Amino acid sequence: MTRDEIRTITKVPEPTLRRLPWYLAFVKLLRGKGETVISSTQISKEINVDSSQVAKDLSFVNVTGKTRVGYEIDALVEELEDFLGFTSSHKAFLFGVGSLGAALLHDTGLKQYGLDIVAGFDVRPELEGQMINGIPVYHIDRFPEMREQLGATIGVITVPVDRAQEVADQIIAGGIKGLWNFTPFRIRVPENIVIQNTSMYAHLAVMFNRLNSINH
Amino acid sequence: MTRDEIRTITKVPEPTLRRLPWYLAFVKLLRGKGETVISSTQISKEINVDSSQVAKDLSFVNVTGKTRVGYEIDALVEELEDFLGFTSSHKAFLFGVGSLGAALLHDTGLKQYGLDIVAGFDVRPELEGQMINGIPVYHIDRFPEMREQLGATIGVITVPVDRAQEVADQIIAGGIKGLWNFTPFRIRVPENIVIQNTSMYAHLAVMFNRLNSINH
Repeated sequence: MTRDEIRTITKVPEPTLRRLPWYLAFVKLLRGKGETVISSTQISKEINVDSSQVAKDLSFVNVTGKTRVGYEIDALVEELEDFLGFTSSHKAFLFGVGSLGAALLHDTGLKQYGLDIVAGFDVRPELEGQMINGIPVYHIDRFPEMREQLGATIGVITVPVDRAQEVADQIIAGGIKGLWNFTPFRIRVPENIVIQNTSMYAHLAVMFNRLNSINH
Repeated sequence: MTRDEIRTITKVPEPTLRRLPWYLAFVKLLRGKGETVISSTQISKEINVDSSQVAKDLSFVNVTGKTRVGYEIDALVEELEDFLGFTSSHKAFLFGVGSLGAALLHDTGLKQYGLDIVAGFDVRPELEGQMINGIPVYHIDRFPEMREQLGATIGVITVPVDRAQEVADQIIAGGIKGLWNFTPFRIRVPENIVIQNTSMYAHLAVMFNRLNSINH
């Protein structure tokens, strides 16, 4: 069985997938300091996740810890990056080159984590033909043609709220399989489509509320 | 009792605070279409959250629905925006003017949701004195002085992973009360400090994994 086949059969729980990048960030930090081995107990202490949970999360990844020694850091970094998809390049289109959309086109960190935004799309004719951080912007009408040419399967949604569902429907019809939704709108998608919501403004709401509580 | 006092006494659950912005986005959309009333059942259908949960979430907000009619949309939008803190201005500093940091300085959407980033800080001397989207960038050494002058209480953390804890400790010591952490590092904070993690790369990992599953 290939790794991909194993991944398909054992569905990795979403909380595990969300915790693994924390472990990766931490072990990369240790590697930078010249450390070579790490135990799940050490990870657990640092990350504040139960150590049996850490071991369980890591059991999805192709690494084996040695009793009383732990995991080899080099192997752990490599396997985690590979497992999380950060070492592959995933082509993406970005829809809505407004303030947040243009900001994300500027973020080269996304590419380091495996997301390669190859084009931006917008309805405003004045944006057509612009380059942002080396990424071309097209009118949304050219999406089917560019999708054919560039073969992206992921769509980053940074359009205004009132266009979110409409744009999502349109790009799913055009062959996009995964949506990364930055709008606060709850986009509905068919079952075979993957959607991740990054609700930055919801995080702000939580922070404002909690700050308000500690101030009184 | 003032609204702030009520907020303090009844701690609003985090899942509620994360769902309320979805309802807000949806009712604003309806308002734009000229609608005037909405029931929790309608919200529930659109957002895909149980209707009793919608009613419960909205019970934290100062709005009363009428039986068989629902909520007045104008009042609901206003109360939600106020409750979520989007209508107040919260001064913030951004730490780490790299790719993602600079991108966030460009995002004017944050200001519309109540986050007013008034300065950026970085360790690189060549950035000192630059303006990004009208926001000045200072050397990190000037943080205590600027904190005094500008009075920001929120810190947006976009430094490299290996500096995240150190910068957090430093700015908490300098009076920052709320941290918005964009790094994949799990920053540890004292109990009286509020922290929100926006792990964009963790969302990517989930998306890549799920896309991989549907492709096999």
